[in-house]
Amino acid sequence: MRFTSEHRLDDGVLEREFTLGEIPGILWTPASAPAPASLILLGHPSLGLRRMYPRLVARARHAAADGFAAATIELPGSGDRPRWAAAEQARAELRRVREAGRPVGDELIDALILPLVERAVPEWRAALDALLPLPEIGGPVGYSGGVISIGIRLAVVEPRIVAAGFFAGSLVPRAMFEEARQVTIPLHVLLQWDDEGNDRQAALDLFDAFGSKEKSLHANMGGHTGVPQFAGEGAAGFFARHLK
Amino acid sequence: MRFTSEHRLDDGVLEREFTLGEIPGILWTPASAPAPASLILLGHPSLGLRRMYPRLVARARHAAADGFAAATIELPGSGDRPRWAAAEQARAELRRVREAGRPVGDELIDALILPLVERAVPEWRAALDALLPLPEIGGPVGYSGGVISIGIRLAVVEPRIVAAGFFAGSLVPRAMFEEARQVTIPLHVLLQWDDEGNDRQAALDLFDAFGSKEKSLHANMGGHTGVPQFAGEGAAGFFARHLK
Repeated sequence: MRFTSEHRLDDGVLEREFTLGEIPGILWTPASAPAPASLILLGHPSLGLRRMYPRLVARARHAAADGFAAATIELPGSGDRPRWAAAEQARAELRRVREAGRPVGDELIDALILPLVERAVPEWRAALDALLPLPEIGGPVGYSGGVISIGIRLAVVEPRIVAAGFFAGSLVPRAMFEEARQVTIPLHVLLQWDDEGNDRQAALDLFDAFGSKEKSLHANMGGHTGVPQFAGEGAAGFFARHLK
Repeated sequence: MRFTSEHRLDDGVLEREFTLGEIPGILWTPASAPAPASLILLGHPSLGLRRMYPRLVARARHAAADGFAAATIELPGSGDRPRWAAAEQARAELRRVREAGRPVGDELIDALILPLVERAVPEWRAALDALLPLPEIGGPVGYSGGVISIGIRLAVVEPRIVAAGFFAGSLVPRAMFEEARQVTIPLHVLLQWDDEGNDRQAALDLFDAFGSKEKSLHANMGGHTGVPQFAGEGAAGFFARHLK
């Protein structure tokens, strides 16, 4: 891991861009931390870090205010990272299906999500390998938001992640429902009740499938991007309970 | 309204029992309130105030710690209040149906709940008439918990109630789903995902039916009485946002 830039935000949070091999990422650490800060990995949709930056930095500031470090990396095939043909084809097909108002079939969901999970999860784990030895960062680790299937796989395979906040707002391959049963860490799941691009019943089924003994579903009104501010505060309370 | 007893709890909260005509009730006010305190009405199941007292006083202490007054009254047909034959018959039938493991039919739900709503709601409104003129109590008013159909009716007919926290854990007559559409105040709805005596799908349908623009569903694991402590804290945040 190589840091490529460093600056202080107005609230004192230290923001550092880094590269991990060819993968760009950002690390935020609190202005003053008496001890190593627990880390929250900030997941995001595959729209590119640059486009997602305003929302990511807002989440990182909230995390830092609660004493947590936060970090994110670019997803494979997003931002400036190389595309691959199958993913581009699947995205183009998704646009056609949505424009035609047709339902998104299982095969297309698999093509969109499963290769992304396969590629992204080892990268997030490599990011943990690189970040956790930094003296200002300690365990345990939380994962928050983004493509929920990436979060599910990480929760299953990565023992350093002890709590996860999921946003049930993306397409979920059938196979991930089975994988969800293997998740046992505490979960805080946000659902936008009237999310235009999301199947509410599938989200409820997924919540039901999670094997965790502690799991909470927080459903709020509004569309995909309309998560109310108080919902973010609820998620902050969840991480404060589990990462401290 | 006539106060019949008064004592201070160890945390300074003033607890006063009262009667409103033949109806017993309890009022809790914070140890020190600089200004009149907003009031939260504490709903409860029809098991009698005496049996519910430990849970009610715990909720009242939490409310007082947040600066709120809290009050509750005995439900018609509960505690020492006179029974009426139809309600006793319906309760006996419910016991038989549950012991036999049969589903609780719509007709029985109507017989159990609708007369209770008809009788209880005017009494809670009368309690508001009596409580709100007290100098230590101000508006606005919140309603929390208890038989959800009573809460729905109160939210529809009582304009002094500006926010409600419901517990989706009781039987709901079909007619109340229509009434739920008329509710427009902010709602915070708790659901125990594996509530043994509760129909989860009916609870989700009811949440969907509420007409409120701001409504949140918080589902947690555990049975009917297993609401986790952090869920109570979430509800406290809801009332802090809406009653201050």
